[in-house]
Amino acid sequence: MTSSPDGAYEELLRLSRDTTLLGSCGQLLQWDAEICMPHDGVKHRSDQMALLAGLVHDRATDHRFEDLLAAAESSPLADEVDSVEAVSIREIRRSFDRETKLPRQLVEELARVSALSAQAWSDARDRNDFRSFAPWLDKTFELAREKADAFGFVETRYDALLEDYEPGMTTSQLSTLFAHLREGLVPLVDSLRDSSASTSEAQAARDFPLDRQREFSEGIARSIGFTADGGRFDLGPHPFCATIGPGDVRIALRYHRDNFASGFLAVMHEMGHALYEQGLDASHYGTPMGETASLGIHESQSRLWENLVGRTRGFWRHYYPPLQKVFPESLSDVSLDSFRRDMNRVAPGLIRVEADEVTYNLHIVIRFELERALLSGDLRAADLPSAWTELYARYLGITPDTDRTGCLQDIHWSEGLIGYFPTYTLGNVYAAQLFAAADRDIGPLEDAFAAGEFTGLREWLRENIHRHGKRFPAAALIEKATGSAPDPSALIASLTDRYRPAS
Amino acid sequence: MTSSPDGAYEELLRLSRDTTLLGSCGQLLQWDAEICMPHDGVKHRSDQMALLAGLVHDRATDHRFEDLLAAAESSPLADEVDSVEAVSIREIRRSFDRETKLPRQLVEELARVSALSAQAWSDARDRNDFRSFAPWLDKTFELAREKADAFGFVETRYDALLEDYEPGMTTSQLSTLFAHLREGLVPLVDSLRDSSASTSEAQAARDFPLDRQREFSEGIARSIGFTADGGRFDLGPHPFCATIGPGDVRIALRYHRDNFASGFLAVMHEMGHALYEQGLDASHYGTPMGETASLGIHESQSRLWENLVGRTRGFWRHYYPPLQKVFPESLSDVSLDSFRRDMNRVAPGLIRVEADEVTYNLHIVIRFELERALLSGDLRAADLPSAWTELYARYLGITPDTDRTGCLQDIHWSEGLIGYFPTYTLGNVYAAQLFAAADRDIGPLEDAFAAGEFTGLREWLRENIHRHGKRFPAAALIEKATGSAPDPSALIASLTDRYRPAS
Repeated sequence: MTSSPDGAYEELLRLSRDTTLLGSCGQLLQWDAEICMPHDGVKHRSDQMALLAGLVHDRATDHRFEDLLAAAESSPLADEVDSVEAVSIREIRRSFDRETKLPRQLVEELARVSALSAQAWSDARDRNDFRSFAPWLDKTFELAREKADAFGFVETRYDALLEDYEPGMTTSQLSTLFAHLREGLVPLVDSLRDSSASTSEAQAARDFPLDRQREFSEGIARSIGFTADGGRFDLGPHPFCATIGPGDVRIALRYHRDNFASGFLAVMHEMGHALYEQGLDASHYGTPMGETASLGIHESQSRLWENLVGRTRGFWRHYYPPLQKVFPESLSDVSLDSFRRDMNRVAPGLIRVEADEVTYNLHIVIRFELERALLSGDLRAADLPSAWTELYARYLGITPDTDRTGCLQDIHWSEGLIGYFPTYTLGNVYAAQLFAAADRDIGPLEDAFAAGEFTGLREWLRENIHRHGKRFPAAALIEKATGSAPDPSALIASLTDRYRPAS
Repeated sequence: MTSSPDGAYEELLRLSRDTTLLGSCGQLLQWDAEICMPHDGVKHRSDQMALLAGLVHDRATDHRFEDLLAAAESSPLADEVDSVEAVSIREIRRSFDRETKLPRQLVEELARVSALSAQAWSDARDRNDFRSFAPWLDKTFELAREKADAFGFVETRYDALLEDYEPGMTTSQLSTLFAHLREGLVPLVDSLRDSSASTSEAQAARDFPLDRQREFSEGIARSIGFTADGGRFDLGPHPFCATIGPGDVRIALRYHRDNFASGFLAVMHEMGHALYEQGLDASHYGTPMGETASLGIHESQSRLWENLVGRTRGFWRHYYPPLQKVFPESLSDVSLDSFRRDMNRVAPGLIRVEADEVTYNLHIVIRFELERALLSGDLRAADLPSAWTELYARYLGITPDTDRTGCLQDIHWSEGLIGYFPTYTLGNVYAAQLFAAADRDIGPLEDAFAAGEFTGLREWLRENIHRHGKRFPAAALIEKATGSAPDPSALIASLTDRYRPAS
């Protein structure tokens, strides 16, 4: 092994790249499991995932990291704060310390169970049969507890899991943030009940043939900057964005014939994720400087394009006339204002991914409460449906009539993603701050949108967020880009400003 | 490590299974590269393939095999010839000895170059630009020479490569077999020139909408026995069958609006491959008893269903009436005899995958000659187009007017598959023998086909071929199933019998 600090650093990067590269094979296995894999392939797939997870773990905990990290950390390379080298060393240390706490067997088991459990969830949802899924959910939370215990934590197990998705965030910080949000949003939601904003139904029962939706919405994503040669669109059981590697970022979507907005907003959302991935510096691939900062930051990109671009008057001043041409039967008699009012209708609903901007975060509050209860053991899987129903009644005033539209709607828990949901709300919080900052820097953005001009915003995000990779922790990145620490006030202000009923 | 022979044997199987499982991740990467991967993903994909190939090589050459094999080979388990245990030990020994001859770097390089080269081929074919592909072809044959030299050989490098696809077969045996075939087929081809068999054009310029072709042809594959929950159909740049693992066998197809037979016969062909894969004993997955015997045997399954079922009068007595209902505009005025005459038309053509049964093997002779010349260095890639043209003129009496319909038509060489083409003709030879034997055992098969009954043949193949895995070498398997060693006489007899012009 080399003894020079530069040599140690280079070797460190090489190990990191190889680990990422191997992990990226697992990302394809996962994407394929959701989009292509035939039903009976799941047993084999779960074996593949477990094997690969074990091998990735072996590499991520390779004993060579220990000496290489020690050599790099004691070299001058580590001293220049926020330099590529210092960031790489810091983040590789973080991953290594974290990964070495997990027993290999647990890593394999998590991968195997998540593949089988995701299929069990999908079958259960299709049949609206929560009972067949409940044992998998118990198993998943049992493994999550083992994982949290292996990582260790100061206050609560949930903190240990959060760290995977939003490094540095704690349960207590989140609780404060959610309380602040509730305080600001509940009056707004109340003021919108029974207002015209919640009753417009211009698009109701109108027909939007799927192929034309795809062509229109995916065409917009391409024209805003999603590189077609470097990615693809698919129809999937739920919308998501998966990165296989540089030059290969994939978007899965779901369209509904009777609801244009749902499919369209999903395209904008996943495009936001994809632009972030495509905006990373490919020359840093496989090392921290080529990785996204956190899931909260990731979600800020999707939310920003979905809500703060795709729902705006400026955007539709440009795109509504062509949209009317695509769907003349359904839209020729609908005015721009009426179309937008419908798209921005606020109404408590059962389905998170179809929720409006204002009530969306209440869906997250519900999941945040439930997953902490499931993790602590206060709630057992068998009792989830009734707990779910109770919280939807309390926060949103509605109750699901089937588990399919209730506690079986999200894939996340089945895949072992526990502690993940709060990043959606963090994304909303960050997005509002980022949009306000960009608007100050290069705005007024809505005028640009009205002129069909999105390059400015895209490049502002690339410059202020994408290109930094993991250079800064999420909170520091937001502060650097916007001048303020993360704070829900911008989100509350933005929603209040845009949704408060005209008095 | 265990010291009991049984323990050694079990450990040997475990290592074998793990190696296969890891390799199966590469099979998904490969399938995805052909069916899904966006254009710009190829660089990353080639890195993934190289890494995985290296890891599979590490496992396949794991030093533990040495001791485990020695222990198993000296145990009584190895003594009972053709037992599961003896076969497993024999074949794991064969793979291990072979794999250890390859340097790891060469294995990675072969994987990396084949991914990049396949994309270069695809781009070159699209643009009809052979020159951009020529350097990749030179590189591929250079690596094939290195590989052959690493394996070692007695007579010729080509023997060393053949061993990957048809273990036990030699260049000189193949040359004899091809000579025998030419002797029998050339008079037949000549007798068919200008006969009515080559001039019928009942389907010419008729229209077969693609979605209806897919539904009809894929429906037949399912009803014959391709398990839909255990596989899928896709449209691809060329027809192929890929196995990801038990429960996951995928068929890629290509349809042409103006040519029903081409797409349909491809479905039957790939279904034959898939039935073999689905007919293996899944409990032996990852060990030799759960693997196919050879590519020649594999091809015998596809050829048998394509040619000896899918072209027959019995088959179409059952399926032609429903086919006419699917394409009334194009077929209501075409009689069964006329339809079949057209489907079985013999006419030298430029495209191998669309060739009739009689001239098909001449396409293989051409590739067999060219790849030996490219391997020996007698022919350089730059000179391939002219050599190709010359041989097509000599053997088939026609010349391609573009490289796209000439030497750019096949993906094989770009993927490093050299020594692979002859297995297509071996498949035809074996298929004729197998069909004759099945017809003796459970025939007359055409009467069964006419009654829509294919289970008998499928199960006969399962019993006599599929379930044996690698128990017998190809030649022994054929002899066991048919009573005769491999011999082209049955193929010549079958073709002569079915195609000889009525005198």
